[in-house]
Amino acid sequence: MRVQKPSRRSRLTVENILAESARLFNRRGYHGTSLTDIARAFGVTKAALYYHVKSKEDIVFRCYQRVLDLGMEGLDHAHAQAASPEEELTLALRYYIKGLTDQWSGAVVLLGERALSPRQHARILRRRDEYERRIRDIIRKGITAGVFMPYDPQLVGFAILGAVNWILKWYNPGGERSAKEIAEVLSSYLVRGLQTHPSDRTEAGISPSRNQRTQYALNAPGDA
Amino acid sequence: MRVQKPSRRSRLTVENILAESARLFNRRGYHGTSLTDIARAFGVTKAALYYHVKSKEDIVFRCYQRVLDLGMEGLDHAHAQAASPEEELTLALRYYIKGLTDQWSGAVVLLGERALSPRQHARILRRRDEYERRIRDIIRKGITAGVFMPYDPQLVGFAILGAVNWILKWYNPGGERSAKEIAEVLSSYLVRGLQTHPSDRTEAGISPSRNQRTQYALNAPGDA
Repeated sequence: MRVQKPSRRSRLTVENILAESARLFNRRGYHGTSLTDIARAFGVTKAALYYHVKSKEDIVFRCYQRVLDLGMEGLDHAHAQAASPEEELTLALRYYIKGLTDQWSGAVVLLGERALSPRQHARILRRRDEYERRIRDIIRKGITAGVFMPYDPQLVGFAILGAVNWILKWYNPGGERSAKEIAEVLSSYLVRGLQTHPSDRTEAGISPSRNQRTQYALNAPGDA
Repeated sequence: MRVQKPSRRSRLTVENILAESARLFNRRGYHGTSLTDIARAFGVTKAALYYHVKSKEDIVFRCYQRVLDLGMEGLDHAHAQAASPEEELTLALRYYIKGLTDQWSGAVVLLGERALSPRQHARILRRRDEYERRIRDIIRKGITAGVFMPYDPQLVGFAILGAVNWILKWYNPGGERSAKEIAEVLSSYLVRGLQTHPSDRTEAGISPSRNQRTQYALNAPGDA
């Protein structure tokens, strides 16, 4: 995860093209990155790229789909595992953050530019709205259950997504902190801000049994 | 604040050019916005713009300076007013958020593009680093005082700035929520996530006397 230029990168596959393109888009912006820049990263010509992808628009559309796939998978996974709204939000965020910090995920979020066709744009917006709605639903469920403070779910939902999506602006895969550490700290902090009765620990409140951490459960029975 | 196209906008001044440009940059990206687009918003030619600004680079550089001015002013103001690290962080964020949501501020943050010259870029980065360092210092002070949880100040600092800067992605000056409401909710939620002993209210914990809310102090003595 922390190796910057692994040999895997040089193999010209759709997966690797999306990952490399996302890295460039996130750093230089969509219009600041050309197909030539992307080809150069693999030491090939643009013609070789066209064998795998249709256009730069095609690449960025798939990168946007990736980040939404990640978000939705995290929500499904969390919904199936969690025993409470607190756990559900924590697990969903943790999954999403781990995906964003995986340098092979090909995820982009911060491109405020007119990169997509109106039809593609509408598809991405529809899924993004669905993702945001599901985050708000968990927050609302927590408020109803009395475990979350009655903050405006839309405002807090935006704050959470901003905090998480911002990771692509500062995350350095070769840096000091592991993806796991970032996911733990951020999900714990962001859920804590909502909790009516937060615990006195900085770790996220996941039931040990549901987190395959049974070995700790014996030592820390209150860790839930 | 909620009027979308006030007459003020049509006056061709440096302030208005920066505000209009920031709005366009934040929505379409730097490379997705031309000087012609900016001129069109005022119903003038590019030549008329050149009387007030040197170039698109000059405009975006000033927009970046604006957002950093806002951040620093918020920190200075908070430092002078606050009685605790919790108050200091709350006041600094509230000031910054109010500035970001002021449609005349001309602030930009989300442009990951190579818009600036290396020398301008270095100047902006130096000030941005200074701003982030000061946010972390408040978090550290709170941890030392025992009022904040021992989260990694750098990670939580990034989360806070992401949550706040993301506002420019979704904020609609003509929308349902006032700038004041957004500033109150977000600053309260983001500080609460750090607090060892958060209050049972969703309002931010500012001493009434320091917030010119003395009329409420009598009714709500615990509101601190």
